[in-house]
Amino acid sequence: MSHLSVSPAPVPSVSPPATNRIWATDLTDHAGGQVTLNGWLHHRRALKSVLFLILRDASGLAQIVIDDPNARRLVESLPHESVLSVAGTVVASAQAPGGVEIHAPLVTVVSAAPEDPPVDLYRPELNAQLPTMLDLASVSLRHPRRAAVQRLSAAAVEGFRAALRAERFVEIATPKIIGTTPEGGANVFELDYFGTPAFLAQSPQLYKQVMVGALERVFETGPAFRAEPHATSRHLSQFTSLDAEMGFIEDHRTVMAMTTHAIDGMVAAARALELERTWPELAIPEVPAVIPDIHFTDALELIGRATGEDVRGEPDLAPAHERWLGEWARREHGSEWLYVTGYPMAKRPFYTHPDPARPQWSNSFDLLFRGLEIVTGGQRLHRHQDYLAALESRGIAADGFDGYLLAFKHGMPPHGGFALGLERFVAQVAGIANVRETTLFPRDMQRLTP
Amino acid sequence: MSHLSVSPAPVPSVSPPATNRIWATDLTDHAGGQVTLNGWLHHRRALKSVLFLILRDASGLAQIVIDDPNARRLVESLPHESVLSVAGTVVASAQAPGGVEIHAPLVTVVSAAPEDPPVDLYRPELNAQLPTMLDLASVSLRHPRRAAVQRLSAAAVEGFRAALRAERFVEIATPKIIGTTPEGGANVFELDYFGTPAFLAQSPQLYKQVMVGALERVFETGPAFRAEPHATSRHLSQFTSLDAEMGFIEDHRTVMAMTTHAIDGMVAAARALELERTWPELAIPEVPAVIPDIHFTDALELIGRATGEDVRGEPDLAPAHERWLGEWARREHGSEWLYVTGYPMAKRPFYTHPDPARPQWSNSFDLLFRGLEIVTGGQRLHRHQDYLAALESRGIAADGFDGYLLAFKHGMPPHGGFALGLERFVAQVAGIANVRETTLFPRDMQRLTP
Repeated sequence: MSHLSVSPAPVPSVSPPATNRIWATDLTDHAGGQVTLNGWLHHRRALKSVLFLILRDASGLAQIVIDDPNARRLVESLPHESVLSVAGTVVASAQAPGGVEIHAPLVTVVSAAPEDPPVDLYRPELNAQLPTMLDLASVSLRHPRRAAVQRLSAAAVEGFRAALRAERFVEIATPKIIGTTPEGGANVFELDYFGTPAFLAQSPQLYKQVMVGALERVFETGPAFRAEPHATSRHLSQFTSLDAEMGFIEDHRTVMAMTTHAIDGMVAAARALELERTWPELAIPEVPAVIPDIHFTDALELIGRATGEDVRGEPDLAPAHERWLGEWARREHGSEWLYVTGYPMAKRPFYTHPDPARPQWSNSFDLLFRGLEIVTGGQRLHRHQDYLAALESRGIAADGFDGYLLAFKHGMPPHGGFALGLERFVAQVAGIANVRETTLFPRDMQRLTP
Repeated sequence: MSHLSVSPAPVPSVSPPATNRIWATDLTDHAGGQVTLNGWLHHRRALKSVLFLILRDASGLAQIVIDDPNARRLVESLPHESVLSVAGTVVASAQAPGGVEIHAPLVTVVSAAPEDPPVDLYRPELNAQLPTMLDLASVSLRHPRRAAVQRLSAAAVEGFRAALRAERFVEIATPKIIGTTPEGGANVFELDYFGTPAFLAQSPQLYKQVMVGALERVFETGPAFRAEPHATSRHLSQFTSLDAEMGFIEDHRTVMAMTTHAIDGMVAAARALELERTWPELAIPEVPAVIPDIHFTDALELIGRATGEDVRGEPDLAPAHERWLGEWARREHGSEWLYVTGYPMAKRPFYTHPDPARPQWSNSFDLLFRGLEIVTGGQRLHRHQDYLAALESRGIAADGFDGYLLAFKHGMPPHGGFALGLERFVAQVAGIANVRETTLFPRDMQRLTP
């Protein structure tokens, strides 16, 4: 996508840095000078006359050349992950990773680790099964690849926020403890709220809609909770939901344009990290200026013709159908991204706006990336009487929705929005098979610690 | 504070705007031109020959001059808060608020409100008691003053993040559902986690410390939950906790410098909104380059001398003492801000680092603003054996802390951090008496809806 520059949200000027750390990856700026680095004893490579100490800090790795026998004895006696401070001279060296290394070091032990870690953090890949890696998260998250996933995730969140702030969206924070279960009560966690039953919010959906009345364009990045009774590679009990909602739309296509804009911000922020330098397999494709789209009924038709399956009248896309569409979009449009629009009303929640021309289908969409749904969005109903009718026709009692319906009684514009699960986005963009590897301390049916 | 410019975190370039809204506050840029505005019927002022329609959008208010009798009849027939689209000519007018108004308008009803709102949104102040205002949040949040509070809150959060990102902090998201209650189990919400008891996290404290091992500098902005059995103006069941933690500190003073930096970012972002234009009483003072500080024992001594109370041996500061210190800081240092350092170890949590010279006191601090504590922080223990000793001496079983203690068994640097309650910050900065007015849909002992 051509990244035309629009004025970003104001970033306040900030006061001078509170500390003057020198980071491993900035050493080239100090060639010939004296520096002090702080970090962890990541690795050692012993040659006959010299010991290479690899020190790891938050920025990356630095090579330290130790030839003094006392310093060598000290460093060889320490468990990996001991915390060190190393003062020395920065010397250019074609052999050293990054082109510089530290000579004549003075090594100080800041905090000796009592023992070697249970997994080797210096290997290119963590040599541990997923459950072990998650049990040992306090240590395994130090692995540079695991830390890079977290940086990618953080960049994506801030890319989302920055793109939407630039479009005058305002950040909100909505209740995570709610008194009623708006979407039917399945897979919801129940808690004791001062003696009253209450629930953990599965999504900020109703609140973000209400806030369109006050701020027109809002977003939230926060935890959402689903008591998923499945132990799949795609489901978590707590995930980070990136939500946006906006007023004065034409229809769901306005929302799709804003979704593309937000996704582009996320991808641009992730690409700006240049993680490929230490993670060569990472290949995050740019978001195309226009993402192709296909109507649900046309998608079914294509799938039916190509596979010979009889999919007419299917109410939703199966995962295999999404994968097929992903391949199709790549083949036909050269795009890793594809919008599917117009899902049947029957499978969409009560607040969904129908397609005025074909009211059996909805003004909704999913965004597929590489054949997996990562965004769901659409236009919502905005008239009070339409809500009353929608609730009644679905047999949902309106009295749990007082606060929500109040907004529609007092003037709401045509509006819509979208939601994206951060972990699934990161997994799919980075080619990670299990969403548990994209979150620090995952929660699922079997996992409540660490 | 002199806002020297340091390079901010990279803001990705973003794609072209997805929509081309013209906003009420941008009308001056279109003087003489034709525009279409969208918004709500905020107010009407009827003169004999003309009707002034005040349209509200997310940016502010626009004055529309209606002299056509049919248009006038239409607008007079509509309930307040009806959603309108208004096309017309932008005309400079010294009398109009903002210096421009719309003439010869074509008014289209986008969505008629079924009835007038239960509170008048056009009055300078909402004329409703707090419980009513909160019950009617879906409508009352549209009041420009209430919407401005949310903008202030959003700006403060992003100011916090931007300041810390500029210092290489990485954003994290930690579990809100936890298996054990680290800080003793008081005031914690319990939930049913697939048949197992679990709890809502009161703070990300233990997780953010662990993450120092992986990323050195981390922050989180997210919900925290406390089952506060008090209905005070300062307590909420769910609040937004702004948390940071950093490694390789000298002692708590390094953390104080970073706290000042973060607070400065928050205040600078809030001031940049220039809300005073519509909220004249708002006066957010700049953060001084250096915030004065006083040791806990010296603070008690001053208070004792000034008030005649015998406060020797007090383990903590009472609210009246904090207020007294706030006055003192203003008088003696010309500062609305004051750090109090060195609180007694006995009143601080188990992970608190003692003052090496006087181990009865701690390397901790509170930051007072106008005599109210808004930040708590300090240096933490970082050696494994120190944690085992601290837990044992407090009679806390170590086995609930396996994942946490694992980090310390494998090398942790001296580190510390701080936490700030966003709602309390916004209330104190904006002069709002009750934190419930600084959050959209507050949760407390008595309130689980809307």
